[in-house]
Amino acid sequence: MKHKSALVVFSGGQDSTTCLGWAKNRYDHVETITFDYHQKHAIEIQQAQEIANILNVPNYVLEINIFAQLDDSALIDASQDINARHKNRPNLPASFVPNRNAIFFTTAHAYAQKMGLDHIITGINQTDYSGYPDCRIPFIESLEKALNLGSESDIKFLYPLIHLTKAETFKMAQKEGILDTVIKETHTCYNGDRSKLHDWGYGCDACPACELRKKGWKEYLENDIK
Amino acid sequence: MKHKSALVVFSGGQDSTTCLGWAKNRYDHVETITFDYHQKHAIEIQQAQEIANILNVPNYVLEINIFAQLDDSALIDASQDINARHKNRPNLPASFVPNRNAIFFTTAHAYAQKMGLDHIITGINQTDYSGYPDCRIPFIESLEKALNLGSESDIKFLYPLIHLTKAETFKMAQKEGILDTVIKETHTCYNGDRSKLHDWGYGCDACPACELRKKGWKEYLENDIK
Repeated sequence: MKHKSALVVFSGGQDSTTCLGWAKNRYDHVETITFDYHQKHAIEIQQAQEIANILNVPNYVLEINIFAQLDDSALIDASQDINARHKNRPNLPASFVPNRNAIFFTTAHAYAQKMGLDHIITGINQTDYSGYPDCRIPFIESLEKALNLGSESDIKFLYPLIHLTKAETFKMAQKEGILDTVIKETHTCYNGDRSKLHDWGYGCDACPACELRKKGWKEYLENDIK
Repeated sequence: MKHKSALVVFSGGQDSTTCLGWAKNRYDHVETITFDYHQKHAIEIQQAQEIANILNVPNYVLEINIFAQLDDSALIDASQDINARHKNRPNLPASFVPNRNAIFFTTAHAYAQKMGLDHIITGINQTDYSGYPDCRIPFIESLEKALNLGSESDIKFLYPLIHLTKAETFKMAQKEGILDTVIKETHTCYNGDRSKLHDWGYGCDACPACELRKKGWKEYLENDIK
């Protein structure tokens, strides 16, 4: 049974591309929204546009200039070490951007109101948990409630990867018929490296994001063989 | 008893200026944040900076380019009638900006995290209720919960005007010793008119915001005399 319409919050990474494949198999109408928040590597946005093009879905790139002004994360400030702890919040990783998902999901919710879309699909995940508190169910449930109250809307957030490991996300991509696109087109690497295609995809093969992806791919292969 | 530190979400209007006076009498350290979201009348931002200067509090102007890109409100799109119904949401006024307060408060919350501020003060009000669902207690309570969950923070939102009429807000400004600044410096008028100083302040004397302010002033005078 197909649902009505969905907006995929789409970074062009493995998780949101898998969500896009999942959504395309379940909704009559699918759109994507990509955020240009002045992240270090513009390659992410290029790949998002490329993948949306390959899969023939509309992609809206919306620029968010808030985080660059707050300048509070190693994901934006190139002078900081991405692998250290956060400079103002030692309990969080340096790559933590305060309220990033809150701003992303609130903006996506405003866009869904404008376009009359029913569901918002995000690839957030609390299993391969990397220390981001804005990737947990209680957070997104509270935010959904707040945003619908604040706009007299009834838009639902869905997060089909929330309980999956990276290996299981590869498995889902295969099941949804999108694994080839995930391997060849998605970008995850913190260092923006797309010089070499490994069996698990492009990347520097050294940053935490590459490590996680490679480990997930190995587990996926092992589980898939037996 | 003084509290620690507060961030006032500061538009330069009557309500947030009254909140600033209120906060200055209750906190050891007060800062203000003003949002430049490409609203029709830049005069609001000028007045916010002017008032912060007069009251000797830091003011940070942060540009938010999201709403201009969504282009979904008569407050931003100069071609729309500010007094009509919203073009996509007939149950809401044309001036409704989808998720405006959600974006403002989420950004303020990120700034408070960065600066180590304990409370966020906003002038939202559900009494002189003009049809904005993002000015109600259940909305802001849910949002506060979501933002703190999503960032492992414990920042409290306070909204001292929430149950006040405009007349009572004038009364509070008087009590907090800030009435003169409210009358002469704050900007409320939807049409950006600062050509004539009335006894209730500057404004076109015709738009809904001026009507509300004038009515509140008259009620304040009447109640204050008896």
